[in-house]
Amino acid sequence: MNVPPTGLPFDDIRNVLRALPLRDDDAIAQVRERDAQLTKPAGALGRLEEIVEWLAGWQGQAVPTVDRPLIAVFAANHGVTARGVSAYPADVTRQMVENFAAGGAAVNQIALQAGAGLKVFDLALDMPTPDICAGDALSEAECAATMAFGMEAIAGGADLLCVGEMGIGNTTIAAALSCALFGGAPEDWVGPGTGVAGDAMTRKIETVKTALDHHGQALRDPLEALRRVGGRELAAIAGAILAARHQRIPVLLDGFVATAAAAVLYKLDEGALDHCLAAHCAAEPAHGRLLAALGKKPLLDLGMRLGEGSGAALAISIVKAALATHTGMATFDQAGVSSPLD
Amino acid sequence: MNVPPTGLPFDDIRNVLRALPLRDDDAIAQVRERDAQLTKPAGALGRLEEIVEWLAGWQGQAVPTVDRPLIAVFAANHGVTARGVSAYPADVTRQMVENFAAGGAAVNQIALQAGAGLKVFDLALDMPTPDICAGDALSEAECAATMAFGMEAIAGGADLLCVGEMGIGNTTIAAALSCALFGGAPEDWVGPGTGVAGDAMTRKIETVKTALDHHGQALRDPLEALRRVGGRELAAIAGAILAARHQRIPVLLDGFVATAAAAVLYKLDEGALDHCLAAHCAAEPAHGRLLAALGKKPLLDLGMRLGEGSGAALAISIVKAALATHTGMATFDQAGVSSPLD
Repeated sequence: MNVPPTGLPFDDIRNVLRALPLRDDDAIAQVRERDAQLTKPAGALGRLEEIVEWLAGWQGQAVPTVDRPLIAVFAANHGVTARGVSAYPADVTRQMVENFAAGGAAVNQIALQAGAGLKVFDLALDMPTPDICAGDALSEAECAATMAFGMEAIAGGADLLCVGEMGIGNTTIAAALSCALFGGAPEDWVGPGTGVAGDAMTRKIETVKTALDHHGQALRDPLEALRRVGGRELAAIAGAILAARHQRIPVLLDGFVATAAAAVLYKLDEGALDHCLAAHCAAEPAHGRLLAALGKKPLLDLGMRLGEGSGAALAISIVKAALATHTGMATFDQAGVSSPLD
Repeated sequence: MNVPPTGLPFDDIRNVLRALPLRDDDAIAQVRERDAQLTKPAGALGRLEEIVEWLAGWQGQAVPTVDRPLIAVFAANHGVTARGVSAYPADVTRQMVENFAAGGAAVNQIALQAGAGLKVFDLALDMPTPDICAGDALSEAECAATMAFGMEAIAGGADLLCVGEMGIGNTTIAAALSCALFGGAPEDWVGPGTGVAGDAMTRKIETVKTALDHHGQALRDPLEALRRVGGRELAAIAGAILAARHQRIPVLLDGFVATAAAAVLYKLDEGALDHCLAAHCAAEPAHGRLLAALGKKPLLDLGMRLGEGSGAALAISIVKAALATHTGMATFDQAGVSSPLD
């Protein structure tokens, strides 16, 4: 795949979507053949077996690897925060990026525990995107360039990608984008985020409603929705997911915001997220709704609502354990264990 | 706690239950105080926060550890297999114990991945317990001695215990025991186990019904139910869980069989399992029913139904990650991150 460094227009994004690599069903068949010989009843490892098939099918190899998992966190700021939609001041985006760099955030600890690499990308934090109630978050050129940045960001040979984000105000953005993509009322998609309630929640719902009214029918096109009511970290995540598909890197989706970014690709091509597993269902109520719309069943459901890739990072250990059982277990023959009676 | 080496009668078991250590609420208060200062919105790590409180409360220290997690797998054989209730021949119990020793089973791989110790205890595999439809699985002396064995088995300084089992036929045993403890019909508690269906499933249901009819009212006492329709691995697990409470070791429960063993303690004292978390909900349908009866919400729900401690072992990584976030994250002050607006 050729990724121009800047200014990729939406037509080129659409072309990248037309040439998506398919799942390697031969690799999956080989996984299933080995699985049937392992010293356990057929199917007894449940979703762990499904995880190995997913890794094999999208890596395109019968013996997949999770040797270089990467957590990519994209950070951006949003003009919509001026409307009082978040429990935290917008400065916290940059402060948290510094906290990631210093190793002090939750995702740092989970990444260490999982043996995963962590890369944090600061997307012009000093230039918040315009308020989506009054203008477009991004121009087409900016949006496509940010998607291209996201594509480049994952270069370097990861064999599993977790996508996460940091951006005060971005559950408002994700709610507007989800509502634009899937319909329903703003209140279906707006939740507490970092912890708003009462008047702030009312403002958040009103903000989404105002933004959707402002942009109107233009939001029917998923890429237009992304650039008009989205934001830089969402565009970069969409780009990273697309590049991962081309590079045969399976993707673990994090929470509501990351999943909303992924949903743009789904609306462009319902198969575009087939290489993605939902790592978890976040406590943000709209995340479950969004996952259902995408047909994704989350691996974990632990009431987390932090973002920053933390839920996806947590699932890496599950993926590693699944792969370890597949590659490391003995077969019935090797272990001298009797097969089922019938 | 003094644990006599053999022949502990049920009265002594009841005495051990009367002196259960309580949760250390001071340790939990200290965890909460630190948690409130960590660079994340309050509650944003969901059940990860709850896990740290659980570790602290039961270890009795504000900074808990998971440095020496131990997976204890107890294996035993059951005369009831002669009734054709399992998809596998009874020989498989010993074969799998040898597979554990050789490192070829699923739990070996998951243990390695989680950095956990694994101990497998062979409980007189050459002497299957009598068919529960016609006699008692264990005498009182045998049952108490096996519980004492389970108590001893976990000695050695683990700071987190996973209890698991291996025993062809033991989902039939667990169904009979659960039905004795919680009522309902045999078919409410009987499931496919290693993979029975059709006639074998009918035989399995009939077997449970016959066993319950044979023992009748004697099953009203939980310890009597354990010795009459239980088995050695279940008695050992109950003992291990009880000893862990006294040694301030939090416990991760594995699947249906391990949970049925734990349920005996619950029926003796509803607080006896407060130091236990349900690691996962197994695919065996009765497991969800049993967890609900115990008021336990599982951490994972991945369609696993293997036993051998595999689900509990898988949850160790989640517990470790939870603890890592709590101990390793920066505070708002340390990181220079702004607090919430209100």
